[in-house]
Amino acid sequence: MSEARRAQGLNAESVREWGQRYSNWGRFGKDDERGALNFITPECVLVACGLPRRGAVISCALPFDQKGPQTGFAGRHNPVHVMLADGGDALAGAQDFIPGGFRYADDAIYMPLQCGTQWDALAHVFYDGKMWNDRGIELVTSSGARANSIDKIKDGVVGRGVLLDVPRHQGVRWLENGTPILPEDLDACAEAEGVAVESGDIVLVRTGMLTRCLEEKSWAGYCGGPAPGLSIHCARWLYEREVAAVATDTWGVEVLPNETPDCFQPLHMISLRNTGVLFGEIFQLDALAEACAADGNYAFLFAAPPLPITGAVGSPVNPLAIK
Amino acid sequence: MSEARRAQGLNAESVREWGQRYSNWGRFGKDDERGALNFITPECVLVACGLPRRGAVISCALPFDQKGPQTGFAGRHNPVHVMLADGGDALAGAQDFIPGGFRYADDAIYMPLQCGTQWDALAHVFYDGKMWNDRGIELVTSSGARANSIDKIKDGVVGRGVLLDVPRHQGVRWLENGTPILPEDLDACAEAEGVAVESGDIVLVRTGMLTRCLEEKSWAGYCGGPAPGLSIHCARWLYEREVAAVATDTWGVEVLPNETPDCFQPLHMISLRNTGVLFGEIFQLDALAEACAADGNYAFLFAAPPLPITGAVGSPVNPLAIK
Amino acid sequence: MSEARRAQGLNAESVREWGQRYSNWGRFGKDDERGALNFITPECVLVACGLPRRGAVISCALPFDQKGPQTGFAGRHNPVHVMLADGGDALAGAQDFIPGGFRYADDAIYMPLQCGTQWDALAHVFYDGKMWNDRGIELVTSSGARANSIDKIKDGVVGRGVLLDVPRHQGVRWLENGTPILPEDLDACAEAEGVAVESGDIVLVRTGMLTRCLEEKSWAGYCGGPAPGLSIHCARWLYEREVAAVATDTWGVEVLPNETPDCFQPLHMISLRNTGVLFGEIFQLDALAEACAADGNYAFLFAAPPLPITGAVGSPVNPLAIK
Amino acid sequence: MSEARRAQGLNAESVREWGQRYSNWGRFGKDDERGALNFITPECVLVACGLPRRGAVISCALPFDQKGPQTGFAGRHNPVHVMLADGGDALAGAQDFIPGGFRYADDAIYMPLQCGTQWDALAHVFYDGKMWNDRGIELVTSSGARANSIDKIKDGVVGRGVLLDVPRHQGVRWLENGTPILPEDLDACAEAEGVAVESGDIVLVRTGMLTRCLEEKSWAGYCGGPAPGLSIHCARWLYEREVAAVATDTWGVEVLPNETPDCFQPLHMISLRNTGVLFGEIFQLDALAEACAADGNYAFLFAAPPLPITGAVGSPVNPLAIK
Repeated sequence: MSEARRAQGLNAESVREWGQRYSNWGRFGKDDERGALNFITPECVLVACGLPRRGAVISCALPFDQKGPQTGFAGRHNPVHVMLADGGDALAGAQDFIPGGFRYADDAIYMPLQCGTQWDALAHVFYDGKMWNDRGIELVTSSGARANSIDKIKDGVVGRGVLLDVPRHQGVRWLENGTPILPEDLDACAEAEGVAVESGDIVLVRTGMLTRCLEEKSWAGYCGGPAPGLSIHCARWLYEREVAAVATDTWGVEVLPNETPDCFQPLHMISLRNTGVLFGEIFQLDALAEACAADGNYAFLFAAPPLPITGAVGSPVNPLAIK
Repeated sequence: MSEARRAQGLNAESVREWGQRYSNWGRFGKDDERGALNFITPECVLVACGLPRRGAVISCALPFDQKGPQTGFAGRHNPVHVMLADGGDALAGAQDFIPGGFRYADDAIYMPLQCGTQWDALAHVFYDGKMWNDRGIELVTSSGARANSIDKIKDGVVGRGVLLDVPRHQGVRWLENGTPILPEDLDACAEAEGVAVESGDIVLVRTGMLTRCLEEKSWAGYCGGPAPGLSIHCARWLYEREVAAVATDTWGVEVLPNETPDCFQPLHMISLRNTGVLFGEIFQLDALAEACAADGNYAFLFAAPPLPITGAVGSPVNPLAIK
Repeated sequence: MSEARRAQGLNAESVREWGQRYSNWGRFGKDDERGALNFITPECVLVACGLPRRGAVISCALPFDQKGPQTGFAGRHNPVHVMLADGGDALAGAQDFIPGGFRYADDAIYMPLQCGTQWDALAHVFYDGKMWNDRGIELVTSSGARANSIDKIKDGVVGRGVLLDVPRHQGVRWLENGTPILPEDLDACAEAEGVAVESGDIVLVRTGMLTRCLEEKSWAGYCGGPAPGLSIHCARWLYEREVAAVATDTWGVEVLPNETPDCFQPLHMISLRNTGVLFGEIFQLDALAEACAADGNYAFLFAAPPLPITGAVGSPVNPLAIK
Repeated sequence: MSEARRAQGLNAESVREWGQRYSNWGRFGKDDERGALNFITPECVLVACGLPRRGAVISCALPFDQKGPQTGFAGRHNPVHVMLADGGDALAGAQDFIPGGFRYADDAIYMPLQCGTQWDALAHVFYDGKMWNDRGIELVTSSGARANSIDKIKDGVVGRGVLLDVPRHQGVRWLENGTPILPEDLDACAEAEGVAVESGDIVLVRTGMLTRCLEEKSWAGYCGGPAPGLSIHCARWLYEREVAAVATDTWGVEVLPNETPDCFQPLHMISLRNTGVLFGEIFQLDALAEACAADGNYAFLFAAPPLPITGAVGSPVNPLAIK
């Protein structure tokens, strides 16, 4: 990666400037809590429903289990799944009180909502005391978020999905850690794929990082470490194209180390907080990438409903592409 | 409800007989773990994608929070949502180590997978030591289910959804507790709605019970108590029509008390275990019912992906109807 | 209870005044995080060890399970105990990989640390931005308490315990809800029991409220509702007698409704925050009361070690009286 | 470690034989669930109370936090501590509804009961379908243990503690992994320390392994890996001396790899299941070892009460030595 392609001279102050420049605060009403998802109009949904040609449904979720990517960064851990009732109980006679031979299994989960394939809520990041649409961060306390929480978008996320398979386009298996993906990279990839990103699109950017981790059987560095990802310059691109949501196969969407040495995750600060774009992380895009390459069709119906957990700042999700 | 309409003389033995009669074991291969979802062919998916006319997306999930329906039955409880980082931390300076002003919130959940709007996995119920497709229950232990678990259907559940709004059809606000819904009730309702249930359909049966609980602001009896629901006679109906999945706005799909005094949840035992039908419970169907009544269209594209929790016997879900 | 005995004219301002008057801030050094436990000198421990005459050990803990007292107040719930491995797994053959026939059971718990028999840490309550020993509340965030946390007293709590069995002394089975226990009540009770409260004592005050709840098989109102308990006037008594810790068989030590209509839990605000007294709650004192009544001896060796959970603001505890 | 000292020719069959030979089943009544703790008579307790000379209290617990020893072995993980209310909430105004300025912090924990300093319950291990005192393992299911659970010993564990500081006696900082500690090692150590192990004693055996892990800042191999520990030959020693409980600073008390190549944790199988000895693991004995070395006194009052978690097969504990 040549230094020339990196963001030059950008810093925390630029982030604040760009936040103002690419802001959608107030655009959807002062009480809006759905952000750029508003770009997905009913017409967009209908157009998306018209895309499938094969009737294939492809999950973009990583399995939720102890083999997940978390290794302790930021206090997150992989899901802990426990059984509350099971076949062993039935064998032990512990369910013999249920008449007629009926036996059952139940289970429970303890998981950070950000531990696997996930949507960040608009209440997930903030700075200078404010989050999306000029809401104060004092609304996000131990009781949860009283604004911009994930349950506010329970009727989403459905629309046209577009996969931008950057490594395939560039002829590599995966992008190197630290590689920023620039707007021109996205445009070139889209053009080669024969799609154009439009207002209300849900853009899935594949970097191949997850592919590599699975192949190497190691999540070392996946969470919070150096990673390929969107450049801060994509802030304008996301804003101008009116992208509704963006998701990647990485931990944090953005290139790491960040291009702003004095500012962590600047694209979150601009595009999630000010532009209102929904961010998706740890998406498993390999099967979808294979399918798109096979039929040459990179646009599809996409349905990725978050769980409406009241006051939550994120949600695990099983995103489905329907081709 | 006249006694004459109730199942007469059916018992645990009948359940076993009907289980054999309406069995799909082996039909989709001896290793199948997807059951009746196999009826949703690519053609079914394409047909379903062609249904939407308005571009409206409607969630069928109850909020996941402490106001949920659980009151302790079977050891289940409502979701416990906790914050791992929040705006208060930012105010307290606890995140000042993050450069550039970036601040964030994170959270976690502890929840039984059967506590709210949910799909039962095919590993959820069993008898006589066997579950779906002749798999032994010794495969379901404290480590989870090694067969028929919810992650095996991660590429689902997408297809044509049909809402059968029984109380609206019968001119009542909700069915009384203990009311069995018979096949002829379903057929009459469908006919009045102008739909016909077909192979691969996902059938949503509204009883109004959840509507009543919300209106009365009380979940007393909702979980495990007397309830309206499908009669055991629906077992044949589900089998013959090749229904892929059935979901209701009740705790357990079936009428309670069960029609078989000596056997608990007989329809689960027949239709889930032997026919392989996916069961959905605690679906919030009120908004969808309103929308269907408004446009007179009771068939729609339906996407309700379970979280692929490895080895789980169920999953919370945010089911989306797209009209 | 005559109104004349109630605190007259005390309010939030009085609480702040008394907090200053009965403050031990700085008394044990500016970095102290153990508070009044410092009054338990090695001599106190040796004296306590000399008390037992019978060699009897009596637990003062309520069982930790779903039958506990929590009914949702303040977001607390009873412990959720789950099995990670069990005998059913062994029967199912799930542990057959372990050589030589060795089989085992494992388990886990999810519990609020304040849900049952518990010590409050000195970081548990605060006002005006400060907690014990002039520490700022910004030290208590989602990452836990960086000062005054429960692990700072891991070498406690061991010393002389004194049971003040107020209802037995007053000839009633339990005190009525709303009954304030005044210093003179404590003194009269102690005198009748033949003990004198001394510097470093751990004082257990029985009100009988828990006895009543168990007898009535109902926890209604136990958590946060009207209760007998220590009057705000005990603040001076706790301070002057240099009591190390005080515990009751109630939810919150103090009388409820509080004697200060404009101020919640004023005794916590004075005695825990300023005097540094450790507060214990939901202690099950019935067996101990029986034992003390039987031998007429109300002073004993007392060992009630909190779990040293790093940064925690409380801990479940199994307090033991050794007579 | 010379092979000559290792157990020769012992196997799973020997384990079953020794289990019968050193069995206490029935000795304390057919319904007993306290095992060898019955050896701690009231006289033992009184003798123990007479031991302290200095009034010092020393915790033998490792902190319960994310820095604990678990690295995933057997599905166990370190404690997850979360805040339910905190100082940040107070700063955000989220507690302003509480009158008089009262503010507070609450917290919760999710932890495997075997993740840190812990007592194994008598329901923790079993073979051939039986656990302590001829109870069937079908009593240990997803609902917990209906016999031999940790809550049955809630009035313990208090008695005379004896520290056997093996590495100090042998002039090394810690024993090498794989070193079996033989009865003669224990006897030589005790003799050098001037103590004799007696009926009802709680024996703490220090190996130094935990000291090494802390010094090396690595838990690699601590859980389930090669370790110093008690030889299977200690089974007879524990039985004949009527030891009530034994605890070490290792993960599993026993030497690893086990001396019986075809049998895992044979000492658990004999001494816990048949002799009924309580096993304690992951005890932090360094501070106690220092104190004992300083005053030359290796016997002390010991109080280590488990939490009475109903049906649990273990409990975290903060064991206190009082000297």
